[in-house]
Amino acid sequence: MLYVHLHMQITAQLIAELIGGEIVGNGEEVISGPATIENAGPGHITFLGNPKYESFIYQTNASVVLVDKNFVPKEPLDKVLIKVKDVYAALSTLVAKFSNSMSIAPIVSSLASVHPSVTLGEHVSIDDFSIIKPNVKIGNSVKIYGQVFIGDGVTIGNNTVIYPGVKIYHNCSIGDHCIIHSNVVIGSDGFGFVKTENGVYNKIEHVGSVVVEDNVEIGANTVIDRAVMAQTIIRKGAKLDNLIQIAHNVEIGQNTVIAAQTGIAGSSKIGDSCVVGGQVGVAGHVKIADEVMIQAQSGISSTIEKKGSKWYGSPALDYTNYLKSYAYFKQLPEWAKQIKILKDTLSSLNNKVDL
Amino acid sequence: MLYVHLHMQITAQLIAELIGGEIVGNGEEVISGPATIENAGPGHITFLGNPKYESFIYQTNASVVLVDKNFVPKEPLDKVLIKVKDVYAALSTLVAKFSNSMSIAPIVSSLASVHPSVTLGEHVSIDDFSIIKPNVKIGNSVKIYGQVFIGDGVTIGNNTVIYPGVKIYHNCSIGDHCIIHSNVVIGSDGFGFVKTENGVYNKIEHVGSVVVEDNVEIGANTVIDRAVMAQTIIRKGAKLDNLIQIAHNVEIGQNTVIAAQTGIAGSSKIGDSCVVGGQVGVAGHVKIADEVMIQAQSGISSTIEKKGSKWYGSPALDYTNYLKSYAYFKQLPEWAKQIKILKDTLSSLNNKVDL
Amino acid sequence: MLYVHLHMQITAQLIAELIGGEIVGNGEEVISGPATIENAGPGHITFLGNPKYESFIYQTNASVVLVDKNFVPKEPLDKVLIKVKDVYAALSTLVAKFSNSMSIAPIVSSLASVHPSVTLGEHVSIDDFSIIKPNVKIGNSVKIYGQVFIGDGVTIGNNTVIYPGVKIYHNCSIGDHCIIHSNVVIGSDGFGFVKTENGVYNKIEHVGSVVVEDNVEIGANTVIDRAVMAQTIIRKGAKLDNLIQIAHNVEIGQNTVIAAQTGIAGSSKIGDSCVVGGQVGVAGHVKIADEVMIQAQSGISSTIEKKGSKWYGSPALDYTNYLKSYAYFKQLPEWAKQIKILKDTLSSLNNKVDL
Repeated sequence: MLYVHLHMQITAQLIAELIGGEIVGNGEEVISGPATIENAGPGHITFLGNPKYESFIYQTNASVVLVDKNFVPKEPLDKVLIKVKDVYAALSTLVAKFSNSMSIAPIVSSLASVHPSVTLGEHVSIDDFSIIKPNVKIGNSVKIYGQVFIGDGVTIGNNTVIYPGVKIYHNCSIGDHCIIHSNVVIGSDGFGFVKTENGVYNKIEHVGSVVVEDNVEIGANTVIDRAVMAQTIIRKGAKLDNLIQIAHNVEIGQNTVIAAQTGIAGSSKIGDSCVVGGQVGVAGHVKIADEVMIQAQSGISSTIEKKGSKWYGSPALDYTNYLKSYAYFKQLPEWAKQIKILKDTLSSLNNKVDL
Repeated sequence: MLYVHLHMQITAQLIAELIGGEIVGNGEEVISGPATIENAGPGHITFLGNPKYESFIYQTNASVVLVDKNFVPKEPLDKVLIKVKDVYAALSTLVAKFSNSMSIAPIVSSLASVHPSVTLGEHVSIDDFSIIKPNVKIGNSVKIYGQVFIGDGVTIGNNTVIYPGVKIYHNCSIGDHCIIHSNVVIGSDGFGFVKTENGVYNKIEHVGSVVVEDNVEIGANTVIDRAVMAQTIIRKGAKLDNLIQIAHNVEIGQNTVIAAQTGIAGSSKIGDSCVVGGQVGVAGHVKIADEVMIQAQSGISSTIEKKGSKWYGSPALDYTNYLKSYAYFKQLPEWAKQIKILKDTLSSLNNKVDL
Repeated sequence: MLYVHLHMQITAQLIAELIGGEIVGNGEEVISGPATIENAGPGHITFLGNPKYESFIYQTNASVVLVDKNFVPKEPLDKVLIKVKDVYAALSTLVAKFSNSMSIAPIVSSLASVHPSVTLGEHVSIDDFSIIKPNVKIGNSVKIYGQVFIGDGVTIGNNTVIYPGVKIYHNCSIGDHCIIHSNVVIGSDGFGFVKTENGVYNKIEHVGSVVVEDNVEIGANTVIDRAVMAQTIIRKGAKLDNLIQIAHNVEIGQNTVIAAQTGIAGSSKIGDSCVVGGQVGVAGHVKIADEVMIQAQSGISSTIEKKGSKWYGSPALDYTNYLKSYAYFKQLPEWAKQIKILKDTLSSLNNKVDL
């Protein structure tokens, strides 16, 4: 509904019941569809998830807003509110009930190429032009969209969704309830070469693999290289955004989230529950403690031992220290003048004293 | 010709006529093929587009050079010149007439998988192993190369070209005259999760979509995520380079150009006619005014209100101020010495005075 | 064995013979499988490639370690050592003998779409759902995995391997013994437009191509754009990691290695035997001398003439100078205090003297 049936008329009361929320205002307000808080117009429902953006609620043209149960407006407000315990959870419930996703039949398409040695669970979908190589094992209720490649000996757990164009090289394993977006590559050779005497590089064969544990989501066009030996590992519950580079033998901890375009170099190990911003670079062979937070565009060149510490800069410093130094960096042209004055004053003073 | 028929013999005069240019020198000079100004040899035609590179024209071995109609050599020059009003436009005309592109027949391949509910315009090409899902609408003269995926309910305007391997998720829309390069992903889920009490992240369903307006070009392997609700929007005439990340609910303004590997985080809005360099990062929920220019590798962490302003650094400063500060950054080791001298001088002076 | 037959029991002696190494310790030690030096447990074989990581050898739980023939432990060590002339070469030999790769039959699949005009060498593999367009020439023993697109007139040399999902546009050429990983795009249009009077950008047609010479490896999801005219060139022996951007008319020198997520802007020329870190940006129209080393995340904005020089920062400085300046950058908050003291001292001194 929210997206697909924009022309249906739904009341605020109906939505409140659906998500277990409490109405403040006119429950008969009619909702024509959803919109973000900035873009909403009359008849739209929107949400205030982060108190930081409270000012938007006084400006939005939306008719109905999902808010936290403890929300009390600081200014006059003429919106219908639906108060809920957890705004994002309510939003998630709402849209999950009504979202329209890509159709895929719970069958193996006759236009797919599936080797006879493949083991399939129940209710598996494999769509057109996908290739499933020998000895692959696929769990129950797995959805493999079209144009996917699954290499020899790969195993895929239950309820995992693999979007069009994903390529998984041989012998990798993917857990249960994973979501892998389009054109992700898993298990490509790591970047390892031996420089010979004449300057030519010889390839180091990569005989390891990649293990993606349960409940991992991987964004579009991300690449995870296979290990030289042993495994590159993405631990359960980790979430990787788009266009990320995970090099050979890396390990990403449980429930760690990494934003787009970040790169983790070979053999580095990121702890559990870390939050890594976008476009971050982590050098090879470093370890990062649990719950560490790294600001976008930072460069981590050595091991971080302090749990929960925050970092910024390239090479990264303690987050607050970086901001302090950067504040002075902005003032350097002013400092140059001051130092000049100091020198001149001192010089003239020197002359006076020497007289 | 320029590329395909290298062994034909074409004269400078013939090319001048073709592009409406004026010959200076021997119109009978024979051209064997094109080359860039640095690499050209005898018999090649090349061009001088940017006066900044004028020095190359005195060094090149090319026989013929396309130049601006007002170009007057500052040094002796033995080349045949073809003077034109707009070098790039002339170049474009020239190569458009003779370029060889990838063959694709104006038919729906019997090796494609096209759902019977799909609406097709006239002269549509759909090549082998492409998948077109239910309720897709495709305009006139659209070219869809092989191995493309078009999800349920997608609409594609007239004269749009979609190169091999592109994946477009359900319900997105693409305008007229767009060009989408290989392995681009449009409409993948945005990176949004709710952190639960035990540290596990739950997925926020994304029921919005992506709208790509007319005359947009999108480079290879770029990703544009769908909105949580409402739309991620690429306005008409915008040009995106390769490997770019556009997060959920972002809006890119008209005629804005963005270079490779840049990432725009969620809900940010880039104005019209902006120029964004490569590897730039823009944080979430910021707005950037029209005609803003952002230097490569910069990081934009807050809203930019000044139209036409220029930025550099991470976090970005006014372009000129950044360069000034950075010039002093380079001198810091020298400053350290000067400050030491100041301290020592002051200290000895202090002693003298106290004596 | 190392990967595939983990349950076989192999002795250190057997492995030493296989790779021509010398046993120090108990040759009868049984090896159950391989592991990296950090993760290894009893029964594992691992290796010490870089003396920098020597400390790990005293901490590892591995039973057997491949080491350099000149390696002499600085501390007591109870491991079985296998001494070899070149650790990486030995490792490479070892794993090459036992590695399991993705199955592909030396035939043209009946599920591929191969134009009748295509020229095929001997022992060519073309797997399911790949598309080979008119006038393509493919050398001997080439392996083309599934879902690959090879555009009109492309040539591919002998013994080259092209993994699933690679897209190569028309008229490009790939040399002998190349390896191209999944979802790489070669030959997409460069990012070139002419800005017209009304602010709209018109596309510059790209009629050049891409030439990839022999022994080049290209990582997953990397993009190499075709030239406006002439060629974008990757010289022999160059190694490109994942998610790299190579713009139109770039030239990458022989045996140059480039790490993941680096971008090289248009018409720039990187010398031979350079080492470029990850997430580096190189501006357009610059030249970089041979054997130059560029630290990760650096930005190169102008030509580098000095062979073998090392660079860091954005815009990049001499590597050592950058580190010096950055060390002082960290101290700026401390400097602010010192300068304040200097000013105050000087001011009070001034007063004294003026008295």
